[in-house]
Order: sequence, then structure tokens, then C-alpha cells
Amino acid sequence: MMHLAAFLFTPGSHSAGWRHPDAVPECDMEFSEYVRIAQVAERGKFDTIFFQDTVAVNGSGALDGVSRYRPSQGRTAYLEPTTLLAALAVVTQRIGLVATATTTYNEPYNIARRFASIDHISNGRAGWNLVTSQIEDEAGNFGADHHMLHAERYERAEEFYDVVAALWDSFGEGALIRDKASGNYIDPSKIHFQDHVGKHFKVRGPLNMARCPQGRPVVTQAGSSGPGMELAARTADLVFTAQSDLGEAQAFYKDLKARARKHGRDPSHVKIMPGLMTIVGATEAEAQAKYRDLQGLLSDENSMRLLARLCGDLDIFALPPDSPLPPLPLSNAAQARQRHLMDKAARENLSIIQTARYLGTSLGHHLLVGTPQRIVDTMEQWVTSGACDGFTLLSPHYPRPLEQFVDLVVPELQRRGLFRTDYAGHTLRDHLGVPVPPNRYEIANA
Amino acid sequence: MMHLAAFLFTPGSHSAGWRHPDAVPECDMEFSEYVRIAQVAERGKFDTIFFQDTVAVNGSGALDGVSRYRPSQGRTAYLEPTTLLAALAVVTQRIGLVATATTTYNEPYNIARRFASIDHISNGRAGWNLVTSQIEDEAGNFGADHHMLHAERYERAEEFYDVVAALWDSFGEGALIRDKASGNYIDPSKIHFQDHVGKHFKVRGPLNMARCPQGRPVVTQAGSSGPGMELAARTADLVFTAQSDLGEAQAFYKDLKARARKHGRDPSHVKIMPGLMTIVGATEAEAQAKYRDLQGLLSDENSMRLLARLCGDLDIFALPPDSPLPPLPLSNAAQARQRHLMDKAARENLSIIQTARYLGTSLGHHLLVGTPQRIVDTMEQWVTSGACDGFTLLSPHYPRPLEQFVDLVVPELQRRGLFRTDYAGHTLRDHLGVPVPPNRYEIANA
Repeated sequence: MMHLAAFLFTPGSHSAGWRHPDAVPECDMEFSEYVRIAQVAERGKFDTIFFQDTVAVNGSGALDGVSRYRPSQGRTAYLEPTTLLAALAVVTQRIGLVATATTTYNEPYNIARRFASIDHISNGRAGWNLVTSQIEDEAGNFGADHHMLHAERYERAEEFYDVVAALWDSFGEGALIRDKASGNYIDPSKIHFQDHVGKHFKVRGPLNMARCPQGRPVVTQAGSSGPGMELAARTADLVFTAQSDLGEAQAFYKDLKARARKHGRDPSHVKIMPGLMTIVGATEAEAQAKYRDLQGLLSDENSMRLLARLCGDLDIFALPPDSPLPPLPLSNAAQARQRHLMDKAARENLSIIQTARYLGTSLGHHLLVGTPQRIVDTMEQWVTSGACDGFTLLSPHYPRPLEQFVDLVVPELQRRGLFRTDYAGHTLRDHLGVPVPPNRYEIANA
Repeated sequence: MMHLAAFLFTPGSHSAGWRHPDAVPECDMEFSEYVRIAQVAERGKFDTIFFQDTVAVNGSGALDGVSRYRPSQGRTAYLEPTTLLAALAVVTQRIGLVATATTTYNEPYNIARRFASIDHISNGRAGWNLVTSQIEDEAGNFGADHHMLHAERYERAEEFYDVVAALWDSFGEGALIRDKASGNYIDPSKIHFQDHVGKHFKVRGPLNMARCPQGRPVVTQAGSSGPGMELAARTADLVFTAQSDLGEAQAFYKDLKARARKHGRDPSHVKIMPGLMTIVGATEAEAQAKYRDLQGLLSDENSMRLLARLCGDLDIFALPPDSPLPPLPLSNAAQARQRHLMDKAARENLSIIQTARYLGTSLGHHLLVGTPQRIVDTMEQWVTSGACDGFTLLSPHYPRPLEQFVDLVVPELQRRGLFRTDYAGHTLRDHLGVPVPPNRYEIANA
């Protein structure tokens, strides 16, 4: 059974998709538009929505000497993910609710509480996309001139996860007695302290919250660098990655599942769901026409700016745009995405400007243009050949392309028996087929 | 016009109220019970709900050598306030949504985002109760063995507020153009950087969020110490305080309004709303019987434990319970509450155990027991004699006492013209009569 996540990256994952006549770019700030998107994804029986986040205005760190802010054509302002998910829990019934929160600029106690709270409010549908902050833009909002180094970020993230997961086990089953007759509100023997003392954190606990319906909210991870894969293999229930080549995807899949096994985990409990953007038409010609329309909206200047953010000290603007993509100096930012771009460019002989356009089109994720049948052919090939367990669907804009996927592609997936026709369970863990973890403190007592 | 806030302190502000036969103590963790409470308060046309918060299990820091955790009879676990308010925004239409978030263990950028997001989701009903963390229990969850000193906490809070308020002005009116034809998503001249560099924080900005419907979410403050009053006078739209003596309340009111004037503010824009617990009966006898029922549930041991938390190094258990309350050594915790207790005990000749029971009954807040007429007599006297602008209503348990207030007391307030019969406006600022502040960056440009 294939798994599907609907990526929420308002106003769209195509950098100029919001300019399309069908696009509703107000979905960046309008709660009612988020409701519409979540309900469409739920109608399509998606496992979850998946809300990306950055704790800065992208590009705001770019001092160019003239204007302080280099406007990017798109994603600038949007609702804060954890408050948004909590509100969406009320207007949806089954779909999972995953949001990004960085381990770089938060405290474990606060993050543990917020996601556990969403899990209670949604009756077991919460997920935390654990990331390390990638862009220098964010550092300036949290007291730092420069970003924490890549290795240190991951070290902090590993410890951050350990603290959060332990906090989620603070309350044993039945810890809240609430016995009116005796006056005993809690059973102290079922309240567990963490007493964590590590390099980055010192947290006594317990969390002031009953254990949540899923035991732990689902944990997702998007890191695809070496340290990112290690973290994912050890901690993640769902992995969002960027793969556009079948062979590479198979290698990544095999590698990550083997790492999970090394960490003593059942590899089938780590769902690998690479990003995928689809542009669907009733005919091949219609799909290609839609694709051309979207590409016509792209600005090369804006695409180059997106690429420049991944070039570190290399001044990409100084090179002829039609020359081959040079090796990118591995920066302190998103190393896995840099490697993905270089591999893709090498494989397909992409020039600098072609690479930039690829990035501007689908955030550097796999793009499929065609009829539902052709798109499902490829999706089927990927899930049946050990390249992935499902996909994280990117929408060029909202809500029309997501509606088209739900109305045209999902039925074809269902017809072939590749995807559920209705939800079987109630929690996100149910949908993913990932069991509720035992409470660590209660194993020890048993 | 009187203002009313419904204090949310699940499972009840009376420390044993949850044991009452009518009580639903599951309101601590059950979202559906919070919905019920919020909807009752909205039916009663309350200005706002007001959710108290602590980032620890109360009493968890008490090492007694035997069990690690000294159970308090009551408040232990509950939903996280910002996610809860966001979800409640969807099931209410008009009532304000205020939650506590500490300045001691958060980052300004994260707090600014969450409350602005709730303001967008609720169409202008969000409020942030800005506090400094009071209890040692919290320190252990955030890397510290001991709590930040009182003065330093307030210094940090002052700067924290300044950064948050500035971040809320990041986007000017019309900053998000979203012009499909030109491809201009934003107007860079309307995106404002903070470039804050202070003793505690360094924050560049801008916030990645359009300015919210209220301009700024309402800011509330509960500090009643000297530094607490200064912070409130400078920053708060609503002040929650503990006053149970008319004369003292008048003095506090006059003092705080004068301080607001000194800060260049219109004193009528700072609403002072002391805590009030009511126990209502159709007759005086019925009300008194209800009060006795509730008092019969109190445990002296538990009440003494509540008092002990406010006694610092003084071992209150070593003193005879019937002796007069001794001077409490002003601790690093809640100094204003300590003073309030000492004043009350001196005024009414309360013994240690009587003071403890007072604390256990209403969290140390003003208690009125009687018929709707008698209760409204006192409320009217307070608002018409310059003691307050309204009240923050504490419920001994949920939801019945709140329902009784709405069904019995609110109509009497309305009959006397003291309280609205329906909402006139849509935002929390509308309800409070506190105007939308101008955007600081746009005044400068004008």
C-alpha cells in the first residue's frame, strides 16, 4: 500500500505557480484556504498533510547594499505551523497533521508539549518534522550572526530528539486517576522524570501532559546528508527526501533501511516518501500545455536567486548562464540538496540556467508531467521496485493542482489497488502502519 | 461597561473543586471539554477566555527523599495553551482567546509568530499573557538548576516585549501585493527589519507573517510586584491581579493608571481585571451550602502544601497551624502574591491554616458567596468606585460553576446595564475598547 503526504508550501512549490490564473496566492495567510487544502487532501485519503517551515523571511539575510530585502517571487509570509495544525485538527477527521519545527532554535520541553497537545486535540494525528535550521536567514532572528555548523546542528538535533521522546513518556498509562472519593488526582508512581543531562540540554521533566493517543506523535525527517540519514534511520517514522532518479532512489532506500536495521529498528516502520510534483492532463498534450504555461511564468532572475542560495561562496551570477553547472562548494546549509542538484545536472547535462529553472519549478524535486495513467505508471514502478514507500506530493500552486491530483490520479491509484479507497484506522500511525511505541519507563517496570 | 474574562485553570481554581459531584476533571486533557467551557463563556458574552500556564508539573521540583513527586490534588496535566487557543478559534466566533506564555524560557521570534498566527486564524481575537516564570519547578526543564533572579526576569521580559511588539510591525499595510501580472509578490519597501541588539536578545527580523487583524494581539500582564506593575503600565492592555479588599484595589488601580499615564499612555486603554471567584445560589442559604460542600472537600495537607510553595526557606510545617501567619521571606517567586496573602492575613487575623485554606479555595483571589443580587452588588461597587474595570472569573471546577455564573449572574449584570447583552465588535480589542496600535514603521514614514 502506497503512502501519500500533501506538502504544504504556500503559495506553491513552483516558484511562480502563484501567478497562474487558477492560483489562490492568498492561501499564504488565509486560514480558510488552508482548511480547503486540508479537506481536499482528506477527500483524497492522503495519509497526512506536511507543512514546511522556516523561522525567517527567506532571502532576508541578503544584504545587497541597495534594498535590504531581496524579494523572492513567492513564499514570504504564512501561518505558524503548530497553531495552524491545531486549528486544522478541528475541521478534519482522519488526515494526519505534520509540521516542521526546528531543533536549532527551540527548547525540547516546548516542542514536546506542542506536538503532544496537537496529538490530543486531533485524537492521534500529529506529526513532528524534526529539522535542523538550514539557512543563514534564520540565525539572525535568534541572536546569532552566523549559523551553527552543520555537524553541531545534527549533534544538537540527536540530543533534542532523545529529550523530546523521553518527555513524551512522562505519564504512564492511568497516571491520571482523578478519584473524587479518595482525592487522589494522580498516581505518583506513574509519573516519570527524565533527569536528562547532556551536552546541549539539561531537562528534568516530567512533561505536564498525559501520554498522547499515538504514544508519541509521528516523527518525520527530511535530512538526506550523512548525519541527516543517520538521524532519520534512528528516529524517523517517515522520511521526506528529494530523489528524481530511480536508481539513486533505490540506493537511498536500501541505504536508509539498512541503517534503520542497524539501529535495531524494523525497516518497514520507516516510510520513505520522496517529493513528487505532478502536472496532470486528460491527454499528454494537455499536460504538456499546462507545463508550458507554468514555465512561461518563471522568471530566470528569480530562479537564479533560488540557485544562488545553494551556492555558498561561489558567485553563480558571474558565470555564463549557459555553461555547465560547476561543482557547488558544500556549504553549511543543505548539503543533500546541493548533491542532488549536482547529480541531476551531471546526469542530464544541465546548464546553470537549466538547473536554476529545475529548482524554480519543483524545489528540486521529481517532476512528472502527463496523463494520470502515465504518472501512475511511474509511481507504481517506484513503489514496486524498492525506490520508495510512497510520495510527498508538491503542488505548483493551491488548491487546483491538488484537486486535480485527487480527482484524476488518486482514482487511478485506487483502481490498480495501489492506494486505500478509505481510511482504515483513525490515527496517523494507523495510516502509515507504524505501531505505537511502548513507554520506555513501563518496559523497565514490567 | 464592565469587562469579563473567564480564567481557564483546569481542572479548577479551587484546589479540591474537581472532587465535587458536578465536576468534570477530565477537562484537563479533553479537548471537547475545553470547547464546552469556551462556548459557555461566549454564550455569557465574556470578553475573553484566559488560559494560565506553567511549563512544568507543579510541585515536581520538590525532592522529599521518598517519592520524587509530591502530588498536588489537582492541576497536573493539560493541553498546551497556544495550540489549544488556535483550535478553540475554530469553534467560537467572537470571544477573545488569551493564553500565557513565559518570557523566561522562550525566544521572542517564536512567541511573536504563534500569537500573530492565532490572531489571523481567529480574525483578531488573540491575546498574549506575558509572564515571567515564577516557580523553581520550571527552571529544571530548561537547563537551569535555579531560577533566574526576579529582577533579571523582569529585565528580560521588558526587552522580550519590545522585540515581540516590533516584530508584529514587520509588515506594513499592503506589503503582500501578490500581483500575478507583474510577478511582484511583495513590496520590499513595506517589509520592516528590527535589527534589535539588546542585552538579552539580538533579533534581525522581519517576522514572516502579515500584520495581524488587531495590529498587535492584545497583551495582558499579571505581575503585581513593583517591576511587574511597571511592565504592565508600559505594555499591557489588560491586567489580571489579585485584590480582595476594596481600598487596596482602589489604591492599586490608581497607582497602575498613573504609571500608564507616565508612560504616555491613555490610562483607559489599560483594563484592570482582578480575579474573582463566585459561588452563586438562588438564596443566600443555598450559596452558603454550596460553599460548605466545596470546603468539605479541601484537604488541609494539600492546602498547606500550596502555602508552603510561597514560603521560600521558611518551614511553614514546623509552626503550629493555628498560630498567626508569620511574615513570609520574600522569595524569588511570586512576590506580589506573598504580599497579598500577608495583607489579607493581617487584615482578617488569619492563622496559618486559615490562610492555607483561603489559598486552596480561590488561588488567593477574591471570593464572593451569595445570591446573584448580592454578588452583583459588590461587582458594581468595585467597578463604579475606581477599584477595577472588570473581573477575571475563576471557577472552582468546570463547567457547572461557569454555567451558573452565565445563567444567574450575567443576566443581573445586564439588567443593571453593567455588561453587554451582545458583542458589538468582532475583535478582542473591540470588546475591550482598546484601539489598534499604529505600525511604528509607518508613523516614521508618514
